[in-house]
Amino acid sequence: MKKSIGILGGMGPLATADLFRKIVTLTRAGCDNDHIRVYIDDNASIPDRTAAILTGGADPLPAMEDSLRKLERCGADCIIMPCNTAHYFLPRLQALTDVPFLSMLEAAAKAAGRRFPGGTAGVLATRGTLATGLYQNALAAEGVACLLPGEEEQAALMRVIYDGVKADAAPEAYRADLAAVTEAMARRGADYFILGCTELPLAADAAGLHVPAVDPTEELAKAAIRWCGYSVKGE
Amino acid sequence: MKKSIGILGGMGPLATADLFRKIVTLTRAGCDNDHIRVYIDDNASIPDRTAAILTGGADPLPAMEDSLRKLERCGADCIIMPCNTAHYFLPRLQALTDVPFLSMLEAAAKAAGRRFPGGTAGVLATRGTLATGLYQNALAAEGVACLLPGEEEQAALMRVIYDGVKADAAPEAYRADLAAVTEAMARRGADYFILGCTELPLAADAAGLHVPAVDPTEELAKAAIRWCGYSVKGE
Repeated sequence: MKKSIGILGGMGPLATADLFRKIVTLTRAGCDNDHIRVYIDDNASIPDRTAAILTGGADPLPAMEDSLRKLERCGADCIIMPCNTAHYFLPRLQALTDVPFLSMLEAAAKAAGRRFPGGTAGVLATRGTLATGLYQNALAAEGVACLLPGEEEQAALMRVIYDGVKADAAPEAYRADLAAVTEAMARRGADYFILGCTELPLAADAAGLHVPAVDPTEELAKAAIRWCGYSVKGE
Repeated sequence: MKKSIGILGGMGPLATADLFRKIVTLTRAGCDNDHIRVYIDDNASIPDRTAAILTGGADPLPAMEDSLRKLERCGADCIIMPCNTAHYFLPRLQALTDVPFLSMLEAAAKAAGRRFPGGTAGVLATRGTLATGLYQNALAAEGVACLLPGEEEQAALMRVIYDGVKADAAPEAYRADLAAVTEAMARRGADYFILGCTELPLAADAAGLHVPAVDPTEELAKAAIRWCGYSVKGE
């Protein structure tokens, strides 16, 4: 019996649409009925995760639990979240349900180890994600070396994410910031990048940034397709 | 109190992803929390609608009702379906629930009358949709003149939809068919086109077809955004 996916979304909405589209386009299918059943709660009312972790912003857990319960009632066999920072709350969410969460960070770290053996990953993520050490731990578990943004690079990344993609700005508004960060980190030793905030693959595409990179949204889509018993296109 | 959207999807999955993305990108929003809450059941197990209408294929209504109940339980304030042909079943679905369905065909017909006053619409749709007279009626209600595909044009359109987009073929496989249909119908008097199958806006984009057209997916997204009390970007 093939399984279904529940997407605990809204963090942010465009990243949720991106994850959904990647699941559809990466599934090997010849007609509508070959696809995976996907339930989505694009819950735009979930408070900002980085603000909750770093500056005492509203706790996102109650709104996330509301979405979790809705996906559970739909019958989702697994749950995925298109927000790297939200994974800080994953252990507490997992404790609330028997439906397994698949981790985006684990999927990204495994892909990094497989695709760039021996290389150093430049981790591009929100302040919230990096403060929790989530990516550092996920990469260490796969034996992947990593390099983090410096203070100026981090400030530029936050502009790309919040004033750029989440604010629906044109790519011209954030292209220079994004390029400056990757160039500076490459000079400091990053061999490739982990686009560790779900707004960053969208920013990189829109801005035409071409650097060797792991897209955690794509890796999570592939991991979920396989977990559900379907085939990833081209595999 | 702003309202939420339920998408009764899976017909097809890529069209569902397209509708969702259009809702997100067409909503005027400056951060995640400015967006609409959207529930989606991407139900890939719904039997083919055209086959049910024309050739005695499996009845899609039970699977559609299953999705409807799930969206109801989530708390969706309205329901939309990214499948023109599925609207044949809309009156029977509406009879099952108090949650209002918003009609994609009505949204498309209103946009056609507003954007191309006095023009003749070439209606590109599946055999199933056209056999039901759904579009002809929706357009007549808005006083919009229309022209339907001839037999050869219809056969070419079905190839674009089923052997092209739904079968995940490359645009090269259907570009010529799509161009031939629109050129022939323009010669017969179509001033613009209604891309009246949710695979067709995807096909037109992928194939780089540039003709004056109404995209019912986009019009439905806008109608739903307004119905929920949000603003459409640029309006």
